[in-house]
Amino acid sequence: MSLAPIPLLDRYRDILARDDERFAVTLGEGGTPLIHANRLGEEIGLANLHLKFEGTNPTGSFKDRGMVLAVNRALASGARAVVCASTGNTSASAAAYAAAAGLPCYVILPAGKVARGKLAQALAAGARMIMVDGNFDAALEAVRRIGEDGSAVVVNSINPDRLEGQQTAAFEIVDALGRAPDALALPVGNAGNITAYWRGFRRYAADGHRLPRMLGFQAEGAAPIVRGEPVAEPETVATAIRIGNPASWDGAVAARDQSGGLIEAVSDDEILETQRRIVQLEGIFCEPASAAGVAGVRRLAREGRIDSREVVVCVLTGHGLKDPDAIQGEEGTLTPIAAELGAIRAAMGL
Amino acid sequence: MSLAPIPLLDRYRDILARDDERFAVTLGEGGTPLIHANRLGEEIGLANLHLKFEGTNPTGSFKDRGMVLAVNRALASGARAVVCASTGNTSASAAAYAAAAGLPCYVILPAGKVARGKLAQALAAGARMIMVDGNFDAALEAVRRIGEDGSAVVVNSINPDRLEGQQTAAFEIVDALGRAPDALALPVGNAGNITAYWRGFRRYAADGHRLPRMLGFQAEGAAPIVRGEPVAEPETVATAIRIGNPASWDGAVAARDQSGGLIEAVSDDEILETQRRIVQLEGIFCEPASAAGVAGVRRLAREGRIDSREVVVCVLTGHGLKDPDAIQGEEGTLTPIAAELGAIRAAMGL
Repeated sequence: MSLAPIPLLDRYRDILARDDERFAVTLGEGGTPLIHANRLGEEIGLANLHLKFEGTNPTGSFKDRGMVLAVNRALASGARAVVCASTGNTSASAAAYAAAAGLPCYVILPAGKVARGKLAQALAAGARMIMVDGNFDAALEAVRRIGEDGSAVVVNSINPDRLEGQQTAAFEIVDALGRAPDALALPVGNAGNITAYWRGFRRYAADGHRLPRMLGFQAEGAAPIVRGEPVAEPETVATAIRIGNPASWDGAVAARDQSGGLIEAVSDDEILETQRRIVQLEGIFCEPASAAGVAGVRRLAREGRIDSREVVVCVLTGHGLKDPDAIQGEEGTLTPIAAELGAIRAAMGL
Repeated sequence: MSLAPIPLLDRYRDILARDDERFAVTLGEGGTPLIHANRLGEEIGLANLHLKFEGTNPTGSFKDRGMVLAVNRALASGARAVVCASTGNTSASAAAYAAAAGLPCYVILPAGKVARGKLAQALAAGARMIMVDGNFDAALEAVRRIGEDGSAVVVNSINPDRLEGQQTAAFEIVDALGRAPDALALPVGNAGNITAYWRGFRRYAADGHRLPRMLGFQAEGAAPIVRGEPVAEPETVATAIRIGNPASWDGAVAARDQSGGLIEAVSDDEILETQRRIVQLEGIFCEPASAAGVAGVRRLAREGRIDSREVVVCVLTGHGLKDPDAIQGEEGTLTPIAAELGAIRAAMGL
C-alpha cells in the first residue's frame, strides 16, 4: 500500500469532481485529526467524546475545505480575481488559495473587531483589503453585486462550491469512526458549516442507517436562529460567529429539524471557560468560537439531555493562534528570577 | 481499504516502538502536506521544488513529532512532571502534550524576545512559566540538573525520544515522493532537526540507494556552526533559530559532511523577503525561521550551485500565526470607506 497522501478533493472525487475535472491547487487541506477526548469527556460525563480539530488546516480553519474547491473552479473558469466579504477566517483562506492560484484577491472587511491573526494572514498573502463602514451584511451585499457583473468570482459561502467542499469533514468523521456519530455539535455563525455537515452525512452515510443529531450553538449575543429573527448588532467574544443574519439560515433549520437536533445559545463566559478546559485537559488550543459546540454539549450533559455513552463529535473550527489575545491563561512567574538551580526549584515548588 | 487515519507513532511503529509499546496520547501530529511549489519554483529557477509545511501540526510546528514520543514515554515511565527550557515552539508543544497526558509542565524561559503566539499557547495549556535572567544555554543547564534528580522528565532535544520522533518527517517525504529528494533544505538553530532528518533518511531509505544532500541555513546573527564557534549574543528576527550554542552541533556537522551538503548563513532581510514570497506565491504562511531554508536554496540556485531539475524539499518548520507581527504585508485600504458599490469598485480599481 502506498503511503503517499492523496489531496482532499481527489480522495473524495467520486462525490465532488465533475467528470474528469482536475484540481491544480492544493495546500494540503483536510485530513484533520479526530481525537478521543478522554479527560474532557470524563469532566463532562461523556465516555465517547471526540474532537474534530480543524485548526490543523493550512490556514488554520475549516474554511480551507470549501475554499480549495471554489478557487480551483474559479481558476478553471478563467476568473480574473476572487472577492469575499469577511471578518476573518474566510479572508485568510481566500487570500491563501488565491495566491497559490495566482489570482488577485479582494477582501471587503466590515469596520470593527477582527481577530489580529486572521488579518495578518490575508495581508501576508497579498490580498487587497477594503474596509467599509457598515456590518457584514452590507459588505456581503456589495460583494454579491461585484460578482454579478463578472469582475470577480465571489468565494463567500453563497458560492455553492464552498459548502460542497466543506462536506468532506463529515466524510472524514465517518471514515475515522467507521460510522456516523450519534450527535455532531458545532458553532453556528453564518450557518454554512452545519448545512454542509448535514448534507455530507446524508450523502456519505447513504447506504448505512445512522445519521447524527445535529447540535448547533450560537453565541447569546449573536443568536438570530435561536431568537427567530435577525440581530442588528451582534456581539460576542467569539468573532468567528458574530453574525446577525446567517446566509445559510434555512440550511441550519433544515439540519436541525430533519436530524431531530437543536440550535441553542451559549454565553461568552461558557465559551471562554470551555475554551480553557479544552486546552488544559486535551492540549488542543482552539479559537473562542470553536468552543461553542463543546460548551453546548457540556450543558446538555449536565442537564441529562444527552446519554453518557453516545458517540459525540464536537467540531473545533479554528486554531487558537488565530486569536491569541482571547485566551486567559495562567500567568506564572514572568518576572525574571536568577538562572540558578535553587531559585528555579523554589519557583517550581520543589 | 480503510480510510481511517493512523496516528503518527503507530504508522511508523515498526521503526519507533519498543516491542508491544502502546502510545496513549496523540493530538493528530504529523501527516503534514508536501506541496509542489510551482510558482515559487519558477521564480527561483527550480522545476521540482517542494515545501514540507510543518505548520499544520497541532501546535503549529514540527516539534510535535518528537514531543508526542517523549511525553508518551514520560507518562509510561511514571513521570511526575515534564520540564523544558524554551524560547517558544518547544514550550508550546510540551505544554499541549503534557496537558493531554495529565502531567504538569514547567517551562524555563530565558528573559527577552519571545514570539507572542508561542507564549500564549503554553500559558493557555496551563504550563507553569518561569522566566530567568540569562540566555537559553543557562536555562537549559538548569533544566538538565532538574532532570537528573528525578523531579521531572526533560523534554528538550537532549531527550533522545525527541529526535527519534522527528525522523518521521523524513519518512513522510520519502513516502510522498516515492524516493528521497536530491536535496533537503531547512533552518538550523539548535540543530536537532537536521540531525533527525539525516538519521531518518538513512534509516528509511536504507534499502534504496539515494540519500539527499543536507542543506542547512542559519541566520547571520546566530550562525555558530558556520563560524565554527559559539555565538555569545545571537540575534535574528527568526526567533526560532536564535541559538548561540546548538545542542546537536555534532549531529548537524555529521549530516552536512556525510551527505555532501553544506551549512551556510542567510541574512534577516533574505529571510523576511523569502517569507513574503512563499505566502504571496504559494499561499503558505510560515514563521520567519521557516523561510531560512528556502532563502538559502534561492541563493544556491542564483549562484548556479544547484541544478534546476533537482528534486528539492524545503522544510517550513512552523506556522506564521506563531509570530504574526513579523510579517510585512500590503496595507490596503484600512481606512473605512462607504459600504456603497461605486466606492468599493473604485477602491478595487475597477
